[in-house]
Amino acid sequence: MNFLEEKILSDATIKPGNILKIDNFLNHQIDISIMRQMAYEMKRRFTGVEVNKVLTIEASGIALATMLGDLYDVPVVFAKKSQTANSTDDKYVAQAYSFTHKKMNNVFVSKPYLLATDRVLIVDDFLADGQAVHALIDIVHQAGGEVAGIGIAVEKGQQKGGRLLREEGYHLESIAIIEEMDWQTQTIRFREQPSHQDVT
Amino acid sequence: MNFLEEKILSDATIKPGNILKIDNFLNHQIDISIMRQMAYEMKRRFTGVEVNKVLTIEASGIALATMLGDLYDVPVVFAKKSQTANSTDDKYVAQAYSFTHKKMNNVFVSKPYLLATDRVLIVDDFLADGQAVHALIDIVHQAGGEVAGIGIAVEKGQQKGGRLLREEGYHLESIAIIEEMDWQTQTIRFREQPSHQDVT
Repeated sequence: MNFLEEKILSDATIKPGNILKIDNFLNHQIDISIMRQMAYEMKRRFTGVEVNKVLTIEASGIALATMLGDLYDVPVVFAKKSQTANSTDDKYVAQAYSFTHKKMNNVFVSKPYLLATDRVLIVDDFLADGQAVHALIDIVHQAGGEVAGIGIAVEKGQQKGGRLLREEGYHLESIAIIEEMDWQTQTIRFREQPSHQDVT
Repeated sequence: MNFLEEKILSDATIKPGNILKIDNFLNHQIDISIMRQMAYEMKRRFTGVEVNKVLTIEASGIALATMLGDLYDVPVVFAKKSQTANSTDDKYVAQAYSFTHKKMNNVFVSKPYLLATDRVLIVDDFLADGQAVHALIDIVHQAGGEVAGIGIAVEKGQQKGGRLLREEGYHLESIAIIEEMDWQTQTIRFREQPSHQDVT
């Protein structure tokens, strides 16, 4: 079991409807040590992959993206969910359904911040149906850039996002993949992944 | 002139209405080197101040807060602007007017993530009228915690936020304070601040 799986088992709660609540260390309060370890582990899993930009979506992907940008020493871009008054730049736009807010969101990146020469590592805290990640992929492609990889903290393995992305041929790494969880017994089973030593 | 003032002069544009556009390195695309320097400079300015939590507000304060949390090795909490479906925790709530989105926002922090024992460094990218910072102060006080300091990347010195906070006795540090700017001539004048050597 890796550090994130251990952290989930010790600190997460499962709520009715099988909702995993980990906002005590991932996306409301941030455990910096866990975030740092995730960034190192992600960079390790993408060893040999050229990355010159990290892309995420506001708000809860930003902390992990910042730690990764720091490790790679490359710019970080976060896609926005609403037009801001200050930006009149042309934008790349894609749509994503937000399950948290139960509506379609437009997702924007200003054109100057994604280039055809970019090899982009897409990062997010959660992967479920993959709506946000697919919107980010769409935006990278609109810019003519290349998706170097997709790095996720926690993948909900019962939902279709991860399967679709792997079928589409993307290099997707999720540090923890939840195969099953049950709020009544508060138990979680993770998908087995190659251990640190086995990944090349 | 410090590194951030130099970066603003070289990379910012001023738009009609005297709007400073620095989303190419601060709050849409993030220049990791500038972000890292800001975190070090802020920690230096708060030398001797005990901090055990960093608090910011989504989304554009998160990158700087993460870098500071990493330097201090303390948890980071970001206040949220909308209820999420997944959280049924009791919350501290305050209100702040968003000039970007031109509406009142509720700002939330789940109660378990701010404690009466917390000495909180409040961090944000911009300070103008101080609405967001005052909401965060309110929330820290609701929790019974103490505001150890307020760290801002860019303060708009013509607006009232900085003056009010200093009058209220808070230890406020803004890495760059814009005293005047003019979109027609694209000139910016910064408030003079003690140099690195003079700050104790």
